[in-house]
Amino acid sequence: MSGNKQRILILGGGFAGVYTAMYLEKKMSASERDHIEITVVSRQNYMVFQPLLPEVISGTIEMMHVITPIRRLAKRTKVVTRNIQSVDLHQKIVTLDPEFQPRTMTLPFDHLVIALGTRLHYDLVPGMREHAIPFKYLGDALRLRNAIVQALEEADNESDPAQRRRLLSFVVGGGGFSGVECIAEMQDFLRSALPAYRTLRMSELRIVLLQSADRILPEMGESLAAYTHDTLSKRGIDIRLGTRLKAVTACGVVIQRKDQAVEELIAASVVVATVPAAPHSLVAALPFQKDKLGRIVVTPEINVLGRGDVWALGDSAAVPQPDGITSPPTAQHALRQADACAANILATLRGSPLKKFAFTGLGKLASLGRRSAVAEIMGIRFHGLLAWMVWRVIYLGKFPGWDRKLRIASDWFWDEFLPRDITEVRIFQKEAVAREHFHTGETVFDQGDFGDKVYVVVKGELEVVVDGCPVATLAQGEVFGEIALIADVPRSATLKAKSPVDLISISRDAFEKLVKHLPGVKMSMDEILRKHMAPRDVMAKPEPQKDLPC
Amino acid sequence: MSGNKQRILILGGGFAGVYTAMYLEKKMSASERDHIEITVVSRQNYMVFQPLLPEVISGTIEMMHVITPIRRLAKRTKVVTRNIQSVDLHQKIVTLDPEFQPRTMTLPFDHLVIALGTRLHYDLVPGMREHAIPFKYLGDALRLRNAIVQALEEADNESDPAQRRRLLSFVVGGGGFSGVECIAEMQDFLRSALPAYRTLRMSELRIVLLQSADRILPEMGESLAAYTHDTLSKRGIDIRLGTRLKAVTACGVVIQRKDQAVEELIAASVVVATVPAAPHSLVAALPFQKDKLGRIVVTPEINVLGRGDVWALGDSAAVPQPDGITSPPTAQHALRQADACAANILATLRGSPLKKFAFTGLGKLASLGRRSAVAEIMGIRFHGLLAWMVWRVIYLGKFPGWDRKLRIASDWFWDEFLPRDITEVRIFQKEAVAREHFHTGETVFDQGDFGDKVYVVVKGELEVVVDGCPVATLAQGEVFGEIALIADVPRSATLKAKSPVDLISISRDAFEKLVKHLPGVKMSMDEILRKHMAPRDVMAKPEPQKDLPC
Repeated sequence: MSGNKQRILILGGGFAGVYTAMYLEKKMSASERDHIEITVVSRQNYMVFQPLLPEVISGTIEMMHVITPIRRLAKRTKVVTRNIQSVDLHQKIVTLDPEFQPRTMTLPFDHLVIALGTRLHYDLVPGMREHAIPFKYLGDALRLRNAIVQALEEADNESDPAQRRRLLSFVVGGGGFSGVECIAEMQDFLRSALPAYRTLRMSELRIVLLQSADRILPEMGESLAAYTHDTLSKRGIDIRLGTRLKAVTACGVVIQRKDQAVEELIAASVVVATVPAAPHSLVAALPFQKDKLGRIVVTPEINVLGRGDVWALGDSAAVPQPDGITSPPTAQHALRQADACAANILATLRGSPLKKFAFTGLGKLASLGRRSAVAEIMGIRFHGLLAWMVWRVIYLGKFPGWDRKLRIASDWFWDEFLPRDITEVRIFQKEAVAREHFHTGETVFDQGDFGDKVYVVVKGELEVVVDGCPVATLAQGEVFGEIALIADVPRSATLKAKSPVDLISISRDAFEKLVKHLPGVKMSMDEILRKHMAPRDVMAKPEPQKDLPC
Repeated sequence: MSGNKQRILILGGGFAGVYTAMYLEKKMSASERDHIEITVVSRQNYMVFQPLLPEVISGTIEMMHVITPIRRLAKRTKVVTRNIQSVDLHQKIVTLDPEFQPRTMTLPFDHLVIALGTRLHYDLVPGMREHAIPFKYLGDALRLRNAIVQALEEADNESDPAQRRRLLSFVVGGGGFSGVECIAEMQDFLRSALPAYRTLRMSELRIVLLQSADRILPEMGESLAAYTHDTLSKRGIDIRLGTRLKAVTACGVVIQRKDQAVEELIAASVVVATVPAAPHSLVAALPFQKDKLGRIVVTPEINVLGRGDVWALGDSAAVPQPDGITSPPTAQHALRQADACAANILATLRGSPLKKFAFTGLGKLASLGRRSAVAEIMGIRFHGLLAWMVWRVIYLGKFPGWDRKLRIASDWFWDEFLPRDITEVRIFQKEAVAREHFHTGETVFDQGDFGDKVYVVVKGELEVVVDGCPVATLAQGEVFGEIALIADVPRSATLKAKSPVDLISISRDAFEKLVKHLPGVKMSMDEILRKHMAPRDVMAKPEPQKDLPC
């Protein structure tokens, strides 16, 4: 099939990757079409139109309308929807994970385009991977929306004030574009959903925005940031400047003001993380020169240094602009980089000279929801209704495909007249085997609770408390909580973290399957049961060791 | 809060349950409103409008439009979105599963309404629970749609003809209303999605409808069933009458014609099951008189025999009609039963006489998609475009809430002009610990495959084949496939089922977490590794036992 075909392989199905394919298709001559094969590898078979993603939270736009099938955008391009396993730059081969069948797939290339974007830098904040919801993909928006609805459902029937307060607390980490647009839409959704819940009041909601810098929206001018701060504060959003997210736990967040030593715990049901960003793990593994943010350094021609056949763009690359600045991670820049990248790949194949990337940005826009936005276009700053109208017109115009434009316009039309949706589509199963993080002093479970999971201590120490008295300490490698499951009795002790603790939890269902059938587990569980048929269900040690007088 | 309030507790958030709450709210007097508390327990916070669910597969209707929030339909009703754990008829208490917090919830009642519907009778067909997609809830429709798109994605890049044929084969079990409407919409979706895939042709698709009876649509007259059979056949759907679904496996289905002894295997990527139905497990556990389908027998007043305070309706009850027939499981009947049930509960509270359920059905409708339907209304049978228009008008009229009516009408309007969506929203994680079923002769994995899972044999026997030679047999309790994961090498043998086999599979990710941290697993895996660092990765037995000459 490939014969003497030139194979252009694009990794990544975001703006940068998909538009590179689209520009390649557009710029190819009829004869080139027969000799060039374009392939896009993307986990999803659609491209997310990121600027409108926040509106999916509030339900202003239908979730399926914020995405476009890649196949319909780039009709001559081969699309492969698998995870990338590895890149072999020497043999010029990319290996993909198995899918339906347990077989990997290899794709050879002549030109490689890296457009893998960024991901959250999970390692910097304990518990973030386990408990925070990122805000990047469509699945994230849906997961976030469902988590909010579930919290409202539970809160409506909750009589314990502390529990109720926790259920009605929502935290967003990061006060940049993404965090601000996300929290604005969250607040808007909460406001429109609340009247359907009989016992909930707006005054009970706690919506917190955490920002480590001294102001929000550092991407924009100070006056617009101040306007935004003021607008969000008036809507009841609690903006914490100069405040770092220290940890995310199963119960909420641990935060710390930059100028203070004391940590504060905020119990919350939903935590969204929009920062900090890290390079994609594949990008991190590639032996190219990177900048301090981990982005691949490229020439003004978007070419990877020293490799005429490898290109990098979008958020995963540091693309120099004519004004000396590195291109910021926005859709408008990714689009123009894709244009330049496609032109330069074709120029390389044709043997013609390459062109430099020459875009410096048109402006910046952030929607605040409820007919308000802030805008900075060609140096002019404005806000409010006019900015909001400009925001809608620009993004509707930019949305690829006339069918989606119509669908979104239709969504916006109905949103003016019809009530917002408050349904929770429960399609996310709880993970059978998961990691959990708890901060010092937090409770894993209480005496008398229903036994829903078994835990293994990965890191840290826990205290076992029976009837208010500490009776034992658990450390790394110890298993607890299994007797409540095996014997089907309530928890006979309270488990509290004595230090920051990492746990692995195994759901009741998975535990039963494993105990019944996996020889090793069955044996060690039998052993534990034999030793501990005392009324306590939490100890894996032979003798509960009293470490505190009681 | 309850004081001298009368507590009416409704179990189930389908038509029967939600409409009972709505009719109660409507029929209560102003003073009764202060003395009666209505609660609905439903896993979802929305009601699915079942008749339109098939259109979600094809994307004719947006998924969120086929559901309505229960809180907006029954505004004075308390809604609790949890699983039901148990019903205590003696103490008059219902216990619910924990949700956010590991605490159960108890709800006392004065009147109990059971409207729990049915579920699939998984136990009758091996592998159905593990591998078939049911078609009842919104999540099912979404899962089905995604499975179809994923199969197309994979098939488009597949060169192996057998794999490609399997990926492009789709099977629906059950030729009643549900199965027929489902397969019609599936075919319609496949037809509109296919042009976006560069290598796929309509002639490669295999869409099979299995029906154990001698004709499809046994609910309707013979002429309409024949018309439907003809219409679907012309669209390329392979209808197998008199054919039973014997098993669903990880590779496809095992079927058998009633008049033949031979079993046939159809390799398929997507299997939908619409039959057989079984009572909800809670209904099965209740000590009431049941009919042979497991439905609760009630009086014509919808009252459970011998319990003036317990009511049962909808698909989980056998409600006698004035014409001597038991009410069929349709929305129109559930609605009228809810009306009668609400009236009779209030009559009981008021001490007035009860009324008998007096509805016998208005007619039957089934949509065949693509502007065609079959109808039997007041004894008149018709089909085609007219039936399809009647179908749309009736169901749009029946859909509760004017906002949803407008949204659906808008969806239907755009569907006439805009292309269908082919995006696959990958929000379903693969289960970390799952059960899998294989039929005699089917392959679990092939030598050289990527090691993605570890398996434990729960039932049946497997053959280990290396380079075409059988070298060992594995039986119950044995573990296999672990070395490919621990040592990160490809599978060193092919594993084939020697009999129908039930397995538990543990994903690579979950296995790594467990091996690293769960003491018992780590020990036994170390043991296995020590014994078998031979090039074969599949044996848990000390000595591979050759049971066939080779």
